[in-house]
Amino acid sequence: MSGRPESEPTGRRRPGRRPGSADTRGQILAAARETFSEKGFDKATVRGIARQAGVDPALVHHYFASKEGMFVAAMELPVNPDDVIPMITSGPREEAGERLTRFVLTMTSAEEARQPVLALARTAMTNDRMAAMIREFVTHAVLSRVAETLEIPLIRMEAAFAQLFGVVLMRYVVKLEPLASVSIEELVELLTPTIQRYLDGSRQFPLM
Amino acid sequence: MSGRPESEPTGRRRPGRRPGSADTRGQILAAARETFSEKGFDKATVRGIARQAGVDPALVHHYFASKEGMFVAAMELPVNPDDVIPMITSGPREEAGERLTRFVLTMTSAEEARQPVLALARTAMTNDRMAAMIREFVTHAVLSRVAETLEIPLIRMEAAFAQLFGVVLMRYVVKLEPLASVSIEELVELLTPTIQRYLDGSRQFPLM
Repeated sequence: MSGRPESEPTGRRRPGRRPGSADTRGQILAAARETFSEKGFDKATVRGIARQAGVDPALVHHYFASKEGMFVAAMELPVNPDDVIPMITSGPREEAGERLTRFVLTMTSAEEARQPVLALARTAMTNDRMAAMIREFVTHAVLSRVAETLEIPLIRMEAAFAQLFGVVLMRYVVKLEPLASVSIEELVELLTPTIQRYLDGSRQFPLM
Repeated sequence: MSGRPESEPTGRRRPGRRPGSADTRGQILAAARETFSEKGFDKATVRGIARQAGVDPALVHHYFASKEGMFVAAMELPVNPDDVIPMITSGPREEAGERLTRFVLTMTSAEEARQPVLALARTAMTNDRMAAMIREFVTHAVLSRVAETLEIPLIRMEAAFAQLFGVVLMRYVVKLEPLASVSIEELVELLTPTIQRYLDGSRQFPLM
């Protein structure tokens, strides 16, 4: 997914670039795309990506705050989980399912937000290494965090994610009718009991 | 998906072939793949496919019984909905969700059954015409029939399908853990309440 040739040697520093220029940011993102797709999300490090880009790690933190933020920018994802998860997990627990359902459906209703998400899904379908990268990011940055905050088993978040992602695929890619044409509010009404049931699960009875 | 060159003229009869040979069946399937991908499932006809293959329509019926059967054979799908749907819709209504969930998970647990299903999904993700063909088949041959038999709104079957298909994707393509490793019985326990709720829906309150 990187426009940068893979043959470029790791860790080569480019002389004469001023830190903090617009070009530096692009250089870090190119290095991030290359490193994430080679090593996966978990094994990639801010330090390694900085070295690959020939910049100081502090500059990476300055631009992207975290490895998650860098992944979001590198893959051109429409939202940063750091911003969204608190919105889902704070507020009344019995309404968390509705907040999550409405957020996913509203976010993916905008084509410019949906396209990078579907592009990642297409890549995961055909490339095992990219599937691993996406799995690590989704698990680490999204599903585990919500599951820990709500104190539910991870598999319940995965079932909820499978339901919502499946609906986005059927609505926008397969275009099943009437699923593709009903309003977001109608879908929220249909899906919220499912999602809320998963989020209500207890650690004692993970699968009930 | 057809190995046959598209330039071959429609309706050309091949002299000297005996009807009913093994080759005739392959010839019909090649014509079916070409016709389905060009016209979609709904607009393709047994008569048109027979003409394309240069055989008598009666021979198509002899080999495949129905247009659905021909699609299943042409796409190398592991099961024919004609065989499966009665098994899902007969028996106690309050257990239909469990029967459907267990069937989908058991069927896709075999790699040779799962691969053609995932191949169709990959194609749908990248090719609008193939997505339309798959949409028409899934709607006509699977979802509408179950929805009509159980007298529930079609959108509820689509939500159930999105849940089950989403789980298959997350288990076998993205390989989210622990979803990818738990037993089919554990997944049946986790997902059945969701699927049963969709199948319990009434026509009066389609989205509740």
